[in-house]
Amino acid sequence: MKLTNLVLAMAIAVFSANTANAAETTKPTNGGKNLTTLNETIKIIHQRKSVRNFSDKAVTREQLEAIVRAGMAAPTAINTQPWQFLVIDDKKLISKYAEGNRAAFMINKCQALVVICGDMNIGNDRSKAFWVQDVSAATENLLLAVESLGLGAVWTGVYPIEERVKEVKAKFELPENIIPLCVVLVGYPDGTDQPKDKWKPERLHWNKY
Amino acid sequence: MKLTNLVLAMAIAVFSANTANAAETTKPTNGGKNLTTLNETIKIIHQRKSVRNFSDKAVTREQLEAIVRAGMAAPTAINTQPWQFLVIDDKKLISKYAEGNRAAFMINKCQALVVICGDMNIGNDRSKAFWVQDVSAATENLLLAVESLGLGAVWTGVYPIEERVKEVKAKFELPENIIPLCVVLVGYPDGTDQPKDKWKPERLHWNKY
Repeated sequence: MKLTNLVLAMAIAVFSANTANAAETTKPTNGGKNLTTLNETIKIIHQRKSVRNFSDKAVTREQLEAIVRAGMAAPTAINTQPWQFLVIDDKKLISKYAEGNRAAFMINKCQALVVICGDMNIGNDRSKAFWVQDVSAATENLLLAVESLGLGAVWTGVYPIEERVKEVKAKFELPENIIPLCVVLVGYPDGTDQPKDKWKPERLHWNKY
Repeated sequence: MKLTNLVLAMAIAVFSANTANAAETTKPTNGGKNLTTLNETIKIIHQRKSVRNFSDKAVTREQLEAIVRAGMAAPTAINTQPWQFLVIDDKKLISKYAEGNRAAFMINKCQALVVICGDMNIGNDRSKAFWVQDVSAATENLLLAVESLGLGAVWTGVYPIEERVKEVKAKFELPENIIPLCVVLVGYPDGTDQPKDKWKPERLHWNKY
């Protein structure tokens, strides 16, 4: 082998190795398939959207209980389940919550509020470090159940914004140990809100960040 | 009406009103239906369990990408999507993570780790207050996608336990701005782990806490 050929061969080898390595660590491998419709649950996960525009159709207590049950099926640190669900379907109480709230335009149109709370009397110091994660997982379960039932919802953040926590605690007369993580507005979507495609392949790293 | 009858009637009226009020504010209204199997998504939500016992069956990159895509479909504060997903399917790297870890027994049996992280370079001060909630919702989406594909997973908490954050950052060489919220172990379940019924009707409050 001549020297120039040897150098060329080495260059190709190095280039190939780099390419292989890049493929190994960064390339997604979806093979052109639509990975957002593999089954019904995955479809619902991708169809879920924040619904801020509601129709006037009533939501039943059976539907509301079903979504809360889905919330309570979430995993929690050391299985503490440190949550409480306050469901408001009394129109007067919904209006009262809307008063002075910057989200009044959508609150006044929804059929129910679900105030999802952490209960500081449940669990120990170790588990309590995870209460926000536990209650967030429950909230996401609830939102997916909402979507699966043809309903719509939007997660409005409360904790850890101090003034919002104070407002929600006062309006719903929550005891000291109950911290509202969020208020979920529930109703039937009027069709305005659509899901977003949030897939960003560069946020998926294979084996090395 | 005699006075005694009047008093009796008043007592009954007061009792009835109290009972009606109690029913209004606390009684679930499931009408005896099974609200955990209303549709495929709700079934998967209730079937999801923490899987700590894995078989030797391999998991594909297509499956892993599908579950990460589900993660990225979660809602986030001001739509910031402040996440990064590091997927480890290299057996050597999985073993390395198991070394000295109290969960080594299960880590060594899983097929992949998904290190789900918050990226502190994404978002503003207001959105960052919600990063734990955002990334938790993404984690729950991922876990439900896992269950829907017949795979199994367990969420192992990292943040905010300082020593765990430090360990995960060091082992996976994460940059300063990347905070691991959790490490999810993924594989095929060997059938040992079963879902729990976590429904507690007393944690659902109607209109008044």
